[in-house]
Amino acid sequence: MEYPSKLIEDAVNQVSKLPGIGKKTALRLVLHLIKDKAEGTFQLTDALNKLRAGIRFCLHCHNITDSEVCSICASHRRDKSLVCVVEDANDVMAIENTAQYNGLYHVLGGVISPINGVGPAELKIESLVNRLNHGQSEIKELILALSPTMEGDTTAFYIHRRIKDLSVKVSVIARGVPVGGDLEYADEITLGRSILGRILFG
Amino acid sequence: MEYPSKLIEDAVNQVSKLPGIGKKTALRLVLHLIKDKAEGTFQLTDALNKLRAGIRFCLHCHNITDSEVCSICASHRRDKSLVCVVEDANDVMAIENTAQYNGLYHVLGGVISPINGVGPAELKIESLVNRLNHGQSEIKELILALSPTMEGDTTAFYIHRRIKDLSVKVSVIARGVPVGGDLEYADEITLGRSILGRILFG
Repeated sequence: MEYPSKLIEDAVNQVSKLPGIGKKTALRLVLHLIKDKAEGTFQLTDALNKLRAGIRFCLHCHNITDSEVCSICASHRRDKSLVCVVEDANDVMAIENTAQYNGLYHVLGGVISPINGVGPAELKIESLVNRLNHGQSEIKELILALSPTMEGDTTAFYIHRRIKDLSVKVSVIARGVPVGGDLEYADEITLGRSILGRILFG
Repeated sequence: MEYPSKLIEDAVNQVSKLPGIGKKTALRLVLHLIKDKAEGTFQLTDALNKLRAGIRFCLHCHNITDSEVCSICASHRRDKSLVCVVEDANDVMAIENTAQYNGLYHVLGGVISPINGVGPAELKIESLVNRLNHGQSEIKELILALSPTMEGDTTAFYIHRRIKDLSVKVSVIARGVPVGGDLEYADEITLGRSILGRILFG
């Protein structure tokens, strides 16, 4: 596609680097910004610049935070004996929104994926082991809440192997039929797991 | 949704103002920017800031341009007797990509839409009339290439009424079955128009 302006071309190229946004969508967004007030664009770019320059990661759990230690790690009301291991910061947000969990987190920053060049060294696994090995560690249980994919399972196995000598209980979140889901629409593997992982009623 | 950081919240709010991007997508994009190199974000915001500060609109046709007059209006190779009236700059790009048109353009900047508070005064219709009324005007034909919607048709009627006393031919682009489209999948109105607007074969 030929663009009427170099500025448009540069902007489209930059915007289309974002995941899930192609050149056509990028052009639509860029033309929207031009049509809108200039202030709108400057507010957007300002928020992104401030974000990228100011964002920090919690010293303990590597979750996104505005300060040195995130509000969850710093809270006195959280159960410090539980640590939930997740892939990304948005998983923390998702679990927090359930209001069913009161422990701490550990954000790995991804999962082991040789195809994408992500090995254990690229993730915060060493930091997790150090957290468990730490002399004053109160952690009694590690909940692995990784995606039920090949990469997620590989990561779970790797973590389990690394810490199997420590006196920490390791659990994984339950796999089963989604609440509100119809049995006949569940895939066989999920349905099979939901039978294997059945729990006593009442 | 609760965000772990005020910076994230601000960025998500700004990004989700873009058309077609909700809070969930905005969060995904913002988390991508955090995960990626900081340079990526700064290149993106820089391109958008430069775009918004530097973008100009052609004095004659109101198309997007880097200079005072756009490259199409400034070209000596274009047929200055033809003017194609379009809604937006992306329509110009789409028509240019067909390589079937060699005339000039006139970008209205929208269509008449009372629901959205867009009247004729908000569009570049007066400027179009001035272009046609101009003493040295070479324009012989006006091609209305507006969307086949209620708003597009209203705008076409309005323009036609405004310039009906001038000695300028007015045409609209053909409506019909898309090339490569199957007849049975065309809607009735389009198919009906394609029969009414039939042209001699060969």
